[in-house]
Amino acid sequence: MVVPLTLTAIAGVGETDYSANSGRSELRLAAEASLAAIRDAGLTPADIDGVVTFTFDSNDELELQRSLGIPSLRWTSRTPFGGSGANATVQQAAAAVASGAAKAVLIYRAFNERSGRRFGTPESHAGFGMGGRKLDFHYTLNLNTAAKSYALENQPYLTRYGITSEDLGRYVVSTRDWAATNPRAAYYQRPLTLEEHQASRWIVEPIIRRWDCCLETDGGAALVITSLDRARDLKQPVVRIHAATQQHDIHSRIIYDVYRSDAEVAAEAQAMNDELQRQSGIRPHEVNVAMIYDAFTPGVLKALEERGFCGPGEAKDFIAAGHTGRGGSMPVNPNGGLMGEAYIHGINNIVEGARQIRGQAVNQQANVERVLVSGGSALILGTP
Amino acid sequence: MVVPLTLTAIAGVGETDYSANSGRSELRLAAEASLAAIRDAGLTPADIDGVVTFTFDSNDELELQRSLGIPSLRWTSRTPFGGSGANATVQQAAAAVASGAAKAVLIYRAFNERSGRRFGTPESHAGFGMGGRKLDFHYTLNLNTAAKSYALENQPYLTRYGITSEDLGRYVVSTRDWAATNPRAAYYQRPLTLEEHQASRWIVEPIIRRWDCCLETDGGAALVITSLDRARDLKQPVVRIHAATQQHDIHSRIIYDVYRSDAEVAAEAQAMNDELQRQSGIRPHEVNVAMIYDAFTPGVLKALEERGFCGPGEAKDFIAAGHTGRGGSMPVNPNGGLMGEAYIHGINNIVEGARQIRGQAVNQQANVERVLVSGGSALILGTP
Repeated sequence: MVVPLTLTAIAGVGETDYSANSGRSELRLAAEASLAAIRDAGLTPADIDGVVTFTFDSNDELELQRSLGIPSLRWTSRTPFGGSGANATVQQAAAAVASGAAKAVLIYRAFNERSGRRFGTPESHAGFGMGGRKLDFHYTLNLNTAAKSYALENQPYLTRYGITSEDLGRYVVSTRDWAATNPRAAYYQRPLTLEEHQASRWIVEPIIRRWDCCLETDGGAALVITSLDRARDLKQPVVRIHAATQQHDIHSRIIYDVYRSDAEVAAEAQAMNDELQRQSGIRPHEVNVAMIYDAFTPGVLKALEERGFCGPGEAKDFIAAGHTGRGGSMPVNPNGGLMGEAYIHGINNIVEGARQIRGQAVNQQANVERVLVSGGSALILGTP
Repeated sequence: MVVPLTLTAIAGVGETDYSANSGRSELRLAAEASLAAIRDAGLTPADIDGVVTFTFDSNDELELQRSLGIPSLRWTSRTPFGGSGANATVQQAAAAVASGAAKAVLIYRAFNERSGRRFGTPESHAGFGMGGRKLDFHYTLNLNTAAKSYALENQPYLTRYGITSEDLGRYVVSTRDWAATNPRAAYYQRPLTLEEHQASRWIVEPIIRRWDCCLETDGGAALVITSLDRARDLKQPVVRIHAATQQHDIHSRIIYDVYRSDAEVAAEAQAMNDELQRQSGIRPHEVNVAMIYDAFTPGVLKALEERGFCGPGEAKDFIAAGHTGRGGSMPVNPNGGLMGEAYIHGINNIVEGARQIRGQAVNQQANVERVLVSGGSALILGTP
């Protein structure tokens, strides 16, 4: 039986310029990215009847509505959690469309994350929906930035398989190589060598160096979701949503998952893979391109293993063999990802996934029929 | 063509006790209400695979998951805005189920709104997703509580139709009469006379008196949404979701809608009524019971007109004629509503709507086949 959610499509994608200092308000960035996505689809603001964003977003739905001139909305929703929930925005928008609650749903995410409120800065209060109490507890242990938390979370994995900083650096080199030929990327024409990676300062010794951290970006990105049938009549090649889900096992937290056992982590990964297969009929590694949430390098290696691209502990060799880079068998983040292109909370990686399917990416891969977008939530995108 | 969202049902309802000082954490209240709803449906926490709440909620999805022992979640979403979005939680959960993203979605809302963080208290920062900047602007004009804002918003309506404080009081008397026979209600066995209403102090003269304000409640309420087919196999009589939507026109804001024209307000009301009819095939006034968001009295009168129970300016006479009270032709909030039973951000009014359909309400009405639940979002519930 067809899962109704999979009869939807990404009909439009858009973004602003990505910079370290936009000089504009976050609302304006959201409006610019949204308008770009709406026009990309061949639609107008009057066609939009739903909006989705993150609980984190400072941009109020109705302020964006007025800014764009959307006459009427009948769907609004937000995804809790940070960028690991990026793909859940697509799940929500697709559910709105598939259920008949709305016809064309705009997903937006915009911020001045570099010039304004920086996520890498400790905060005294994490706010509603962010496990404020848990963070308060960890803050007393000086775990007050995402980098520190991720380092702690990933240390057991790195130790178990003898993964070195050089192993991590090889992913960074590969993604910076992609970014170097992407004019939209922060690191356009600025590749990184492994030596430069190894010479960069520690952020959290002995795991995360300067170049193992994603960007902090001013900018916005947006998507328009419609039914598959409607997308066929619109402007762009159709990008079908073959699967869209999120996965939270009982032992999982937003971050700080260091206390979980291997078996718990494996079970959670298995559950997500099974759900992606239930919806799409394919396993998540059976794709042509993988967009992997690369907030910090260790997570990329783990995701390659969890999604089945290689076995446990094999990701470092998979990357070293060149599979994820230019000319490799499984290109990962060919836009340069969140480290090389921009950090728009993962939404820009969905934009790139859609462009690869459409054959319009700046580092376009040949014959792309299926793309995995993977984080704490995940998508399989593809041709119809 | 059937709208897929309407092939879903409320399979379970639950709540905590309602009090002015729960003596428990908000997480515990959420867990208690959720467990009650899950058991009411004849399910266990292991059957739940999605959760929905408000952006306002302090209760983290994963903390609640662990508290209840839900093994795995594949859907989380939140509705922006306050209680006017209450019914949008049902829209989201129904969309999750109808789209195939999840099978049994738990909606929860719990707080210590009286003993803890009181909504009636001015706040320096309204937080993400609440139009913080707009509130900042209004706060400089001393519009720093919801009561003040609603009074300003409703003054033109009251002036136009010559609606007096006594006219408003008649709704309060009617809803307190319902509450007086509801053991769960804050005002159980404590009816109010019109004289008492008129003798109560002004909160915002000349519109909102002490008794025109909803309760501040410590407590929680919860719902379980499944497919219509699954609900038929579960424990309770089936409560079908015949329609679930929200409506935000370009001129609307969260509150402070005083600047909108009559034509704009009418168009927005019309759009919501049309959407309810598109989904369910019936007009919102073609029901047996109406659950109307009664945060402040003037909104009840306006909603009766906007949803078509009577013509513009006629609500005061509709109420005075006894239609909304005990023995009336269109019982409104027979649980006592948010003024008489509890203020759980509107979720307790959905619980009551479901119980009226099931024939299990404390002030059960005869032959209830359709119930409207109305706010900035709306539902039509009914027998299958």
